[in-house]
Amino acid sequence: MPSGHSDTLALAIELLSRRSLTPEDAGCQALLGERLVRLGFTLEAMDQGGVTNLWATRGSGDTLILAGHTDVVPTGPEQQWESPPFEPTLNAEGDLCARGAADMKGSLAAMVTAVERFVTAHPDHHGRLALLITSDEEGPAVDGTRAVVEQLRQRGERAQWCIVGEPSSSEYLGDTIKNGRRGSLGGQLTIHGIQGHVAYPQSTRNPIHQAAPALAALVAEQWDVGNEHFPATSFQISNMHAGTGATNVVPGELEVIFNFRFSTEVTADALRQRTQAILDAHGLDYTLDWTLFGEPFLTHEGQLLEAVVSALESVTGRLPRLSTAGGTSDGRFIAAGLEAQVVELGPCNATIHKVNERVRASDLDTLSQAFETIMQRLLG
Amino acid sequence: MPSGHSDTLALAIELLSRRSLTPEDAGCQALLGERLVRLGFTLEAMDQGGVTNLWATRGSGDTLILAGHTDVVPTGPEQQWESPPFEPTLNAEGDLCARGAADMKGSLAAMVTAVERFVTAHPDHHGRLALLITSDEEGPAVDGTRAVVEQLRQRGERAQWCIVGEPSSSEYLGDTIKNGRRGSLGGQLTIHGIQGHVAYPQSTRNPIHQAAPALAALVAEQWDVGNEHFPATSFQISNMHAGTGATNVVPGELEVIFNFRFSTEVTADALRQRTQAILDAHGLDYTLDWTLFGEPFLTHEGQLLEAVVSALESVTGRLPRLSTAGGTSDGRFIAAGLEAQVVELGPCNATIHKVNERVRASDLDTLSQAFETIMQRLLG
Repeated sequence: MPSGHSDTLALAIELLSRRSLTPEDAGCQALLGERLVRLGFTLEAMDQGGVTNLWATRGSGDTLILAGHTDVVPTGPEQQWESPPFEPTLNAEGDLCARGAADMKGSLAAMVTAVERFVTAHPDHHGRLALLITSDEEGPAVDGTRAVVEQLRQRGERAQWCIVGEPSSSEYLGDTIKNGRRGSLGGQLTIHGIQGHVAYPQSTRNPIHQAAPALAALVAEQWDVGNEHFPATSFQISNMHAGTGATNVVPGELEVIFNFRFSTEVTADALRQRTQAILDAHGLDYTLDWTLFGEPFLTHEGQLLEAVVSALESVTGRLPRLSTAGGTSDGRFIAAGLEAQVVELGPCNATIHKVNERVRASDLDTLSQAFETIMQRLLG
Repeated sequence: MPSGHSDTLALAIELLSRRSLTPEDAGCQALLGERLVRLGFTLEAMDQGGVTNLWATRGSGDTLILAGHTDVVPTGPEQQWESPPFEPTLNAEGDLCARGAADMKGSLAAMVTAVERFVTAHPDHHGRLALLITSDEEGPAVDGTRAVVEQLRQRGERAQWCIVGEPSSSEYLGDTIKNGRRGSLGGQLTIHGIQGHVAYPQSTRNPIHQAAPALAALVAEQWDVGNEHFPATSFQISNMHAGTGATNVVPGELEVIFNFRFSTEVTADALRQRTQAILDAHGLDYTLDWTLFGEPFLTHEGQLLEAVVSALESVTGRLPRLSTAGGTSDGRFIAAGLEAQVVELGPCNATIHKVNERVRASDLDTLSQAFETIMQRLLG
């Protein structure tokens, strides 16, 4: 390790040197666990289905969870990287380059060094400080945070507050935090028709023809107009297939896969019912399977949001923008399962999941300061 | 050859013993050619692209073409056949069973024996008697009748009348004749959108969503109401595909394959224009490729129809029903290219293209009598 690196940067480099492709942890959690044990944390390995999960706690009472993941997405073509993706490199612009630098080993390093400073300064802090770390956030995300939360919930655990270290920032560190996420509801729809020769339409029932007006109605439907926190609920068809390639055969079935990203103005149940009502109104013979990937959550103004906003103002000198845009994160499981207020705060996300992923090295120190300040506000 | 078989049945058995899977002829045309040469026909081999074609003529003046094909469709699972598909078998019910018995080697045999009787009785018949026989009606049908007609047309040949031996009958021989066929026009449509993540719909343009109202409009459109000879023009989407399987990606393109079966009340050009007008009205960014498989044709009342109807009345004792239903046939090429009146007359079609294809053996004799009577009416 080159001399002159901050504690946070040095720890980030250690984590980034480990090839922890989803769902591999590659020793990252052991490394973090050692440092937490030294601070008096109690560690609980909650591995499941080949996924490495760590639940570490210190103290008791109102609980602040710092949540993150050690797994990273694949590198893409390694020859397109300016430096090897698992050999973290500090370039001339001051960027730390490696797969996972922004998403989200940098955040993990910042969390742990923040905890070290906070616990050293406040050995008898109020409440309980906890870390929830998984190695499957980028994969199926079934045996990771979701499974840990389910176990915690079953034994009666609850948490008041949670910071997820996902890269929430846009232009500069802390310009944006996520105080909620839309829900995600998937549908797999099969329209049943009657196959036959195109020359004899009277003995067929074309499922594409049957479905066309219903699909037009689904597309035209305004599901809600959103609210001050959420954009309007969005319906998107991602896949649609009918026919075997023969141009003279009316197909027997049409398959449609769609997804709702929904606000807190509707519920998954309401979306299911309204979708089915539109299909029924068009007299379709159909099968429809639903998958609820996540309920929406929203963290209203309160202790957590105040602590995060004031910490960022004090550390960066500016107020963050609140957002609920973008995809899903593990925050959904923690919000729903442990009834916690959840905020996502992490580095800039411009390079995540791309080649030459990078994070400004100095941002990791700023992020660590912000995490420490939040802990002081809530548990100090 | 067992004794006691009629000439027609004996010739059909000879043809059916040859394994002439599309585009193979397997010696069938040579066999027929020998018999025609003996009657004073001039033969012209018009083979093209691996397809065997025969153009045989006798006499000069107004021309009656007897048209047919020696190729057959595949057998399907041979073990499901009650007797081997290329070992023609006369069963206890009096049916001749073999691949091609109904579609259409039986008709070819009936045509040739009818010609033999007619020419023997009328060595100096009026006009010109012609046979147009191909070995690719069941395949791509590009190098078969279409190519022959094109060559004949280029050298100025025309024909007044044509009988195609396709199996037109339904319940009993001669109950239905085809006095026309609908046109067939195919379209391959690609709707262009902008691919992206379902969580960021504002930076995508979903081609399925764009297309849905346009497809609903195409499906709802009444292209015409048909007329006394044709059912209404039918639009059918046979294939529709979008998406790569990923459920969180808005696809970049939607592919739609459709087909018109159209009456003489519209033209292919009008259908193209009206389709494009609907797509344009919905503001779609699209590519559309058209294939005209065949123009519709209709044989109005006239010499040919009168000859066929009166011949069937005299031979079967009943009047045939006129129909333009069903798929395409080589009649479209002869009607369009040689400006001929075209009627299709052949055996019952219940078993064509299926396992255990069969034809009532006595129907072949009746059919041969009908063909002979038609020749007498037109050229006698």
